[in-house]
Amino acid sequence: MKTFENYLNAQAKKVEEGINKQLKKIKNAPQIIIDAMAYSLNAGGKRVRPFLALETAKAFDLKTNDAMAAACAIEMVHTYSLIHDDLPSMDNDDLRRGKPTNHKVFGEDLSLLAGDGLLTFAFETLAQNGSIKTVGPARTLKAVLSLANYAGVSGMVGGQVSDIFAEGLMEGKSKRAAKLTPLKYFKGKKPAYYLLPSEFKEVSAATILNYIHTNKTGALITTSVEMGALLAGVEGQNLKNIKKYAAAIGFAFQVVDDILDITATKKQLGKSNSDAENKKLTYATLFGLEASRQAAKNALADAQKALGSLKNVKAQNLTNLYAMAEFIVSRSH
Amino acid sequence: MKTFENYLNAQAKKVEEGINKQLKKIKNAPQIIIDAMAYSLNAGGKRVRPFLALETAKAFDLKTNDAMAAACAIEMVHTYSLIHDDLPSMDNDDLRRGKPTNHKVFGEDLSLLAGDGLLTFAFETLAQNGSIKTVGPARTLKAVLSLANYAGVSGMVGGQVSDIFAEGLMEGKSKRAAKLTPLKYFKGKKPAYYLLPSEFKEVSAATILNYIHTNKTGALITTSVEMGALLAGVEGQNLKNIKKYAAAIGFAFQVVDDILDITATKKQLGKSNSDAENKKLTYATLFGLEASRQAAKNALADAQKALGSLKNVKAQNLTNLYAMAEFIVSRSH
Repeated sequence: MKTFENYLNAQAKKVEEGINKQLKKIKNAPQIIIDAMAYSLNAGGKRVRPFLALETAKAFDLKTNDAMAAACAIEMVHTYSLIHDDLPSMDNDDLRRGKPTNHKVFGEDLSLLAGDGLLTFAFETLAQNGSIKTVGPARTLKAVLSLANYAGVSGMVGGQVSDIFAEGLMEGKSKRAAKLTPLKYFKGKKPAYYLLPSEFKEVSAATILNYIHTNKTGALITTSVEMGALLAGVEGQNLKNIKKYAAAIGFAFQVVDDILDITATKKQLGKSNSDAENKKLTYATLFGLEASRQAAKNALADAQKALGSLKNVKAQNLTNLYAMAEFIVSRSH
Repeated sequence: MKTFENYLNAQAKKVEEGINKQLKKIKNAPQIIIDAMAYSLNAGGKRVRPFLALETAKAFDLKTNDAMAAACAIEMVHTYSLIHDDLPSMDNDDLRRGKPTNHKVFGEDLSLLAGDGLLTFAFETLAQNGSIKTVGPARTLKAVLSLANYAGVSGMVGGQVSDIFAEGLMEGKSKRAAKLTPLKYFKGKKPAYYLLPSEFKEVSAATILNYIHTNKTGALITTSVEMGALLAGVEGQNLKNIKKYAAAIGFAFQVVDDILDITATKKQLGKSNSDAENKKLTYATLFGLEASRQAAKNALADAQKALGSLKNVKAQNLTNLYAMAEFIVSRSH
């Protein structure tokens, strides 16, 4: 595992170099907004999502450099989501990875714009992958569609909406919905209106939780993997199976996050244990720690099975994807 | 002019139909966030930007339907920017086009996410243009690059940043910068750090104002026109000239906005005359009404000249672009 962590760190450095190279290319922008974006982009982290994009591309014989734009783009989207999530009107967090949150340094208005700027810059960065000969515009446009789909209201943003309304559900009512209900527009709206897409027939805590997990965290992990595969030209059954891998590790990632929010100390996390304090609906608070640990293990098995079912792939190209799945389940912070 | 306005309204209806068709396709999202996006998308407006995308495409022989995705996308980006601009941490506006602003109805958190969702959905919508045979992925990817570039920190977002810091400059100091200066991180930062890109050598009120105009409003108008042209396969000198047209009408649009903010009544605008109240740096407050009116007229002449210099274009295909330039300069609300 130590060797893998060293490799993960080395790849994270490469991604950070890639991101800062992109930032240096920016023209015609006031320096303060570039600095606000750079502040959060350079706040550290394991760069799990870019790693997945790069390693998936490699698994299907596309060079790391030829997927670098997509790797940088996914980290930009992830970072924008953290900046907006930390804002006073959302989680109102003062610390992120042990450092003051973006709005604590730059103010709410600039922080909002830094998030908007990053999300937009992610698409600009990703679109550049189209000029790489081995990739081309058709595959890149598919990656754009994937990123937009999984980052938007059908993915990450949808999960965030549900998550907001799930607060207080452990005590039997949504605090956020209670605030809306007195307003004329929301009279008579049922919980499903806030918490779940209309396609869902059943409204239970477990369904809501599963929707939040799959989308709030899982969606960006899925598109990281999918973009890597799409840029490498993967389609059909292999695409389906590598997305099963993504879904499994995405689920595991969030479950482990929920567990750590309860078990890890503030220092280890670099942020406050806000889920437990807010009595948020999480895997750990709903099913307990033991069941959550078992669920993470089951997800690991699913991920391994999905990798095993890929056709025409060199086994040595998959080592890092196997290792990443284990790393996600066994991490302690 | 009456005939043109009827045509403009008819095209606006088509765009609104296109947007609502896109919204109906959304799957896997809680209904409340779709409603929050729809609320602002359906708040009315002349749909100038989509019109420009569609008419530019038509000028270069691309059918309206084959540029519709780009037209919808630009209106989504425009709408997201209004939603975020109205938030309490930004302009804190209660009314937009005579209706309560998005956050007044849905709350700040959902409003933030509705904006994020719309920006992301714009790229998803635009990317769909790639599946249209006459357009294809290569041209569509160029349009993605254009939209991202002009909507981001090198364009609209950059203009918004500068605009925030320009508040109070009429009285000799930036109110927003004054709030940052006591913070350690901002010690010793010069006005250029907040107000202008580092490439700018001169820092004067006129330079700042010009940067704000070109980017805050002009950038989205430029990409509307550019996307229409790119999807139609335009390049070289024609692309340069149609972008000159865009720059001229974009400038005129903002100058007329500044003039109307002083001369029009609250009822005509459907919002409060906040620029005058906030003593914002605008063309009208800096140069006065007369000079502003003349500047708008000069811009109209530039726009007409740019259209006149296009090669291999049917004259009758340009009528609506000429009419739009006149409409922008002569509008009274």
